[in-house]
Amino acid sequence: MELYLFGENFFEKHLLTSAGQLTELLKGPHKIWLNISGLGDHKLISELGNLLNIHSLTIEDIMDAGQRPKFEEFDDFVFVSTKMIYTKRALEELEIEQISLLIGPNYVITFQENHKDVFDPIRTRLENPTGRMRKLGSDYFAYTLINAITDHYYKVMEMVSEANEDLEDQIIKARKKVKLEDLYIHRKTLQEIRKNTWPMREIISDWKKSDHPVLNEKNQIYLNDTYEHTIEILENLELQRETITTLVEIYMTQLSIKQNEVMKTLTIIATIFIPLTFIAGVYGMNFTYMPELEWEYSYLIVWVFFILSAGLMLYYFKKKNWF
Amino acid sequence: MELYLFGENFFEKHLLTSAGQLTELLKGPHKIWLNISGLGDHKLISELGNLLNIHSLTIEDIMDAGQRPKFEEFDDFVFVSTKMIYTKRALEELEIEQISLLIGPNYVITFQENHKDVFDPIRTRLENPTGRMRKLGSDYFAYTLINAITDHYYKVMEMVSEANEDLEDQIIKARKKVKLEDLYIHRKTLQEIRKNTWPMREIISDWKKSDHPVLNEKNQIYLNDTYEHTIEILENLELQRETITTLVEIYMTQLSIKQNEVMKTLTIIATIFIPLTFIAGVYGMNFTYMPELEWEYSYLIVWVFFILSAGLMLYYFKKKNWF
Amino acid sequence: MELYLFGENFFEKHLLTSAGQLTELLKGPHKIWLNISGLGDHKLISELGNLLNIHSLTIEDIMDAGQRPKFEEFDDFVFVSTKMIYTKRALEELEIEQISLLIGPNYVITFQENHKDVFDPIRTRLENPTGRMRKLGSDYFAYTLINAITDHYYKVMEMVSEANEDLEDQIIKARKKVKLEDLYIHRKTLQEIRKNTWPMREIISDWKKSDHPVLNEKNQIYLNDTYEHTIEILENLELQRETITTLVEIYMTQLSIKQNEVMKTLTIIATIFIPLTFIAGVYGMNFTYMPELEWEYSYLIVWVFFILSAGLMLYYFKKKNWF
Amino acid sequence: MELYLFGENFFEKHLLTSAGQLTELLKGPHKIWLNISGLGDHKLISELGNLLNIHSLTIEDIMDAGQRPKFEEFDDFVFVSTKMIYTKRALEELEIEQISLLIGPNYVITFQENHKDVFDPIRTRLENPTGRMRKLGSDYFAYTLINAITDHYYKVMEMVSEANEDLEDQIIKARKKVKLEDLYIHRKTLQEIRKNTWPMREIISDWKKSDHPVLNEKNQIYLNDTYEHTIEILENLELQRETITTLVEIYMTQLSIKQNEVMKTLTIIATIFIPLTFIAGVYGMNFTYMPELEWEYSYLIVWVFFILSAGLMLYYFKKKNWF
Amino acid sequence: MELYLFGENFFEKHLLTSAGQLTELLKGPHKIWLNISGLGDHKLISELGNLLNIHSLTIEDIMDAGQRPKFEEFDDFVFVSTKMIYTKRALEELEIEQISLLIGPNYVITFQENHKDVFDPIRTRLENPTGRMRKLGSDYFAYTLINAITDHYYKVMEMVSEANEDLEDQIIKARKKVKLEDLYIHRKTLQEIRKNTWPMREIISDWKKSDHPVLNEKNQIYLNDTYEHTIEILENLELQRETITTLVEIYMTQLSIKQNEVMKTLTIIATIFIPLTFIAGVYGMNFTYMPELEWEYSYLIVWVFFILSAGLMLYYFKKKNWF
Ligand SMILES: [Mg+2]
Ligand SMILES: [Mg+2]
Ligand SMILES: [Mg+2]
Ligand SMILES: [Mg+2]
Ligand SMILES: [Mg+2]
Ligand SMILES: [Mg+2]
Ligand SMILES: [Mg+2]
Ligand SMILES: [Mg+2]
Ligand SMILES: [Mg+2]
Ligand SMILES: [Mg+2]
Ligand SMILES: [Mg+2]
Ligand SMILES: [Mg+2]
Ligand SMILES: [Mg+2]
Ligand SMILES: [Mg+2]
Ligand SMILES: [Mg+2]
Ligand SMILES: [Mg+2]
Ligand SMILES: [Mg+2]
Ligand SMILES: [Mg+2]
Ligand SMILES: [Mg+2]
Ligand SMILES: [Mg+2]
Ligand SMILES: [Mg+2]
Ligand SMILES: [Mg+2]
Ligand SMILES: [Mg+2]
Ligand SMILES: [Mg+2]
Ligand SMILES: [Mg+2]
Ligand SMILES: [Mg+2]
Ligand SMILES: [Mg+2]
Ligand SMILES: [Mg+2]
Ligand SMILES: [Mg+2]
Ligand SMILES: [Mg+2]
Ligand SMILES: [Mg+2]
Repeated sequence: MELYLFGENFFEKHLLTSAGQLTELLKGPHKIWLNISGLGDHKLISELGNLLNIHSLTIEDIMDAGQRPKFEEFDDFVFVSTKMIYTKRALEELEIEQISLLIGPNYVITFQENHKDVFDPIRTRLENPTGRMRKLGSDYFAYTLINAITDHYYKVMEMVSEANEDLEDQIIKARKKVKLEDLYIHRKTLQEIRKNTWPMREIISDWKKSDHPVLNEKNQIYLNDTYEHTIEILENLELQRETITTLVEIYMTQLSIKQNEVMKTLTIIATIFIPLTFIAGVYGMNFTYMPELEWEYSYLIVWVFFILSAGLMLYYFKKKNWF
Repeated sequence: MELYLFGENFFEKHLLTSAGQLTELLKGPHKIWLNISGLGDHKLISELGNLLNIHSLTIEDIMDAGQRPKFEEFDDFVFVSTKMIYTKRALEELEIEQISLLIGPNYVITFQENHKDVFDPIRTRLENPTGRMRKLGSDYFAYTLINAITDHYYKVMEMVSEANEDLEDQIIKARKKVKLEDLYIHRKTLQEIRKNTWPMREIISDWKKSDHPVLNEKNQIYLNDTYEHTIEILENLELQRETITTLVEIYMTQLSIKQNEVMKTLTIIATIFIPLTFIAGVYGMNFTYMPELEWEYSYLIVWVFFILSAGLMLYYFKKKNWF
Repeated sequence: MELYLFGENFFEKHLLTSAGQLTELLKGPHKIWLNISGLGDHKLISELGNLLNIHSLTIEDIMDAGQRPKFEEFDDFVFVSTKMIYTKRALEELEIEQISLLIGPNYVITFQENHKDVFDPIRTRLENPTGRMRKLGSDYFAYTLINAITDHYYKVMEMVSEANEDLEDQIIKARKKVKLEDLYIHRKTLQEIRKNTWPMREIISDWKKSDHPVLNEKNQIYLNDTYEHTIEILENLELQRETITTLVEIYMTQLSIKQNEVMKTLTIIATIFIPLTFIAGVYGMNFTYMPELEWEYSYLIVWVFFILSAGLMLYYFKKKNWF
Repeated sequence: MELYLFGENFFEKHLLTSAGQLTELLKGPHKIWLNISGLGDHKLISELGNLLNIHSLTIEDIMDAGQRPKFEEFDDFVFVSTKMIYTKRALEELEIEQISLLIGPNYVITFQENHKDVFDPIRTRLENPTGRMRKLGSDYFAYTLINAITDHYYKVMEMVSEANEDLEDQIIKARKKVKLEDLYIHRKTLQEIRKNTWPMREIISDWKKSDHPVLNEKNQIYLNDTYEHTIEILENLELQRETITTLVEIYMTQLSIKQNEVMKTLTIIATIFIPLTFIAGVYGMNFTYMPELEWEYSYLIVWVFFILSAGLMLYYFKKKNWF
Repeated sequence: MELYLFGENFFEKHLLTSAGQLTELLKGPHKIWLNISGLGDHKLISELGNLLNIHSLTIEDIMDAGQRPKFEEFDDFVFVSTKMIYTKRALEELEIEQISLLIGPNYVITFQENHKDVFDPIRTRLENPTGRMRKLGSDYFAYTLINAITDHYYKVMEMVSEANEDLEDQIIKARKKVKLEDLYIHRKTLQEIRKNTWPMREIISDWKKSDHPVLNEKNQIYLNDTYEHTIEILENLELQRETITTLVEIYMTQLSIKQNEVMKTLTIIATIFIPLTFIAGVYGMNFTYMPELEWEYSYLIVWVFFILSAGLMLYYFKKKNWF
């Protein structure tokens, strides 16, 4: 358990090992950020639950990695559950990690599934004694955490945009061959992001409208900004989804056009030569009485017929705009 | 009729045979759970109706297995009608059973179509003297029933997810052949679940908002939790539906691509050999006067023509990216 | 004009011939149901209009068979316009008949297009002196009419469900050949039902919310029941529509799969034999100098080539999973 | 400028040439309908603007033929802008003409783009001294104009319905060949009508809700009737749109089925005869050493093989249900 | 930094180089338009920020070219962020430039990304001493800017309409070949315009509803007009989108019909001649014992068979309506 104690002229970082150590600190003059990585230590979490008067259903929500993002007010604190999204490369499976926040009058407690998170810039800024984070209350600190999470959604969206441009190149400019699997993973990624961004919007909206005493009215302008960012992400998502749909439609149309061309090639060749081959076959028959075989100009006439017939066919297909 | 009498220090299980036996117990100090399995005994149910002052339309709702789930307030009790869902395996037909609840001040009466239900864990927990169920009111007990029902929706959803992953394997990774029937059953199952989960959401929402005297304001937090679960199920359902739609689209695209390849193979072979066969046919004709037949190098020249012509065709198809 | 006079201890059936006869009866102690079948007698209807103070626009609404279903309050009565639906068999054209109701303090007047209707069970129940219909007010009687109409929507829906199961058999189990016309009529039937059920829902909702003096607050519970039924019908309709969409999609996919198989068959046969036929054609040429023709083992070698070549082709198609 | 002066016992028709002539008449005892056809005379319209105190933005709205239909209240009058629709035949381009109304306490001024309009029945009814139009206020007169416009939408809708039935005949009963262009024009017509009917609904709704002094509360019932008509038109439009979508889908399915049959025919013929032609080709080869050629029953055996092979193929295709 | 000072009898244009110069002018009697092109000079913008008391988040919004359009009220001014759209030709990539407005009691400050803008007509009108712009307040001036921006959306929409008519010509009248890329760019352009027009509607709606002291209630009628224009643009967009969808569907249908015709041509030719070629091949075999070869009329009979067989086939295809 990482513990940060901070105030306008104070900054300390500790590693806590038991919930009990927190009791004194909560009464102290400093703001507290307690970050718990890993949800395996049930005893610790239930001690914290007792200490801070957390309802058993909320403990369940913290422990359940599949919890739907939410904002909930309690007597002593505000509870926020949301998701962090990471991705290394476009079209890689997204990593989604749940994070829960308890925002009390002088503390913020965060529960993560593992040590990886998106808060390193915040850890650095916390050490800066003139930053707003050190002056404003615990709710402003919680806002910076949410803001850091949302900023990471932007990064994921950028990768998605790039993947979309790749797809555009593949389909519209036909530079590379389209892998249907990529298309599928791409769409699933967009679904995943949307699934997690929609409730984000709700959470921040609830937060903005809340008049819980730990939330300072003056900091609402910061939440407005984050709220706009989630709207931007959602609008961008819808645009990306539409783009993919359009691209897939165009790809299907391209396939149809190609198939039409293949069929035309086959039909032109077959339609010209199959009848001619029949005529050649006829004069290859071995009947005893076939008067034409003896005629002097038969062979010439047959060739004239071959060429005229092929020419007419070609003219007909040309007129039908087949090539 | 299973009858459970319970209170903080009391637990008894009886088998009731007539509605009359209930009259005394309702005045007693204990909470009552009366579970009626099978709706065939019209006389019994109408006796109960008289005893508890149930409107004839509500009796009809209890008896009609196709009743739309609902929450309705009456003077003496609250009436809830909903569905339990079971399934043994994914892609098996779902079993859907209607269950109606009457929640009175000190009783909960449940009406099921048959003996099978999802309440065995509750029967066990009821015997535990320190459980919340024994201490809190009849509305909390009714909540545990609804919660048990919702938990079973989760189990069904898990099977659906697995079936979806199977389908993904079949289509994306082409491991197995797709059975269109499975696809159809799969979609129908999702429709069925959605049809029954949507009104569930409404019911619990109505329950939360209700201020009927038998519903204790303090237990609303438990309903909030169940409400979130139904939302999660619905969101998950939408995701599964989208996934199927995407998969089917990709499957159709795969079919188109394959058909295109089949056509190309045919066209390449036919376009190369049909004209050559014609030429061979020409020199198989039996005309008396065909000067080329006598020439010494005719046969060689014809073979050179065959090979050049085939080569040119192949080059043309290669350039068109047909293989 | 059928006229029913009824009360708790009274029941009479008359055949009225002029609107004038009604004047006295309206002042009498009995409840009145006047049923007018056929809208051709303009004089009669305008007399009724004058007698009951019906606005000319309402008269128009009664006469116009294409009137959108509606609920409208006037000083003396409530006006309801809706549709009855009949069908003899699934996939037969629906019969839709407009019916208008005037609900006054002690009368209900119904206007139908023809003699056929869905009210025979009500005519029978009216003769029963202990029925609720005889005791409760004219609004309850109007409710029983609306309820009878709604019950008929259920019957139509059942036929639609059966037609859908037929379609399922035809497509999924391939028992019968799909007739596209049936599919079209089926969809149109669903559209027709929906077009008429949607406003039904509005009407009953308006009726429920109305506090017009002729509508007794105590009978609202009956309308709730009918309202639920219209919701059930609408939900069922949506389900049937989705099912058809899914079935049509699967049918299209089946067609694509079949076409793919046809193409593969053609391609396999043509790709194997067309090149072989070319070779046979080559050795059927009549050139004087074709050294191979004289060789002793030529014919054997050619057969070996034929068989090897066909075998290789088959192996290639097998590997490509074409059969 | 057509000018009608009318009242309960008064009716005069004039042709006005300047806006000035209007000043006196507006103070007079008669109701006025001034109908201006053609928007080219800017001077006249700006004089009217000054005379009646019309805002410059409203003048712009009157002059701009692409103005979105709207209802706007001003101090002295109500401004309504809407569209008249005409069509001569189904699947002809629609004619859409903008019409603006100023409804003052004793006048209605209409601005049209040209002389053609839908008001001839109103001109006739205006001469009838006992009509409601002569007795009721200028707002009732304006209602009759709007009503006449809406009635014309019905006529257009009837033509659309007929065009749809034609299309149904062409596709379902295959009586005529489908022209894709017709389909396109048809859809565009529906879009155009909808584009203009939607705001119509809004306008009438605003009119109904307005409590502007020139609008008499008692005439609201007439607007209700017109409002219902616009709803009917919109519902009908949606139905027609769905019908077209269904028809196009069925047409596409028919195309697929036909293509499948064409392919089957080709495949059956080719699959039967291509291998046989190969065999015939083999025995047409000119190798010196082909023992079978000399055998007495070779020719018979080959024919037996030909017939058996074709028979087997046919049996196989029959079993696959290909014909 | 362009600076315009203006009032009823005053007009001056300056080029400002530092924020400090503004301090005095803001206290002066004239209205101010300060136009800043280029957002690179961070120092200047932060000086302005301090001078005018702009929140750091608003500075960020001004600097971030991807900011979602918005309307926000502050104590001293109103902040509006929106987009200007230019395009040179249809189907060219759109140029989208962000513009931010600060509307204070006597000033409007605009921030653009570069020097290009849509305000030249306004610069000209500003020099006209009798224009409304000179008389009315800073909010009216801001309205003229927004109005100029919206008018440019119209111009872009006109180009889109023309591109759509081109596409219509290409597809319906088949004048030119369809480029799928154009289709894609076309759709993307529509998406882009919509993405930017939707929030425009919100902004103007918020502006209309705002009662911020710098916004004069009397100028609301002008915003109404602009609001209607954005609605018109959005409705037009939807229409264009539907048109494209319809066109693409028709194009796909055309492709299907063409492919069907190609297949029919191939099938007719192949089905007629392949069996005939087989027969010719049979009589080209070199068996010693082929009695027919010697018969006198064999050759004639074979030709009769050829012609009859081809005739029958043609008759069959004719009856099947294949040509
Ligand atoms: Mg929970
Ligand atoms: Mg959970
Ligand atoms: Mg972590
Ligand atoms: Mg979610
Ligand atoms: Mg607040
Ligand atoms: Mg931010
Ligand atoms: Mg019921
Ligand atoms: Mg029911
Ligand atoms: Mg059961
Ligand atoms: Mg339901
Ligand atoms: Mg409550
Ligand atoms: Mg739970
Ligand atoms: Mg009417
Ligand atoms: Mg009507
Ligand atoms: Mg009838
Ligand atoms: Mg309707
Ligand atoms: Mg009521
Ligand atoms: Mg009923
Ligand atoms: Mg305009
Ligand atoms: Mg006109
Ligand atoms: Mg419009
Ligand atoms: Mg009014
Ligand atoms: Mg009318
Ligand atoms: Mg911002
Ligand atoms: Mg931003
Ligand atoms: Mg610029
Ligand atoms: Mg946007
Ligand atoms: Mg204002
Ligand atoms: Mg305007
Ligand atoms: Mg304008
Ligand atoms: Mg589609």
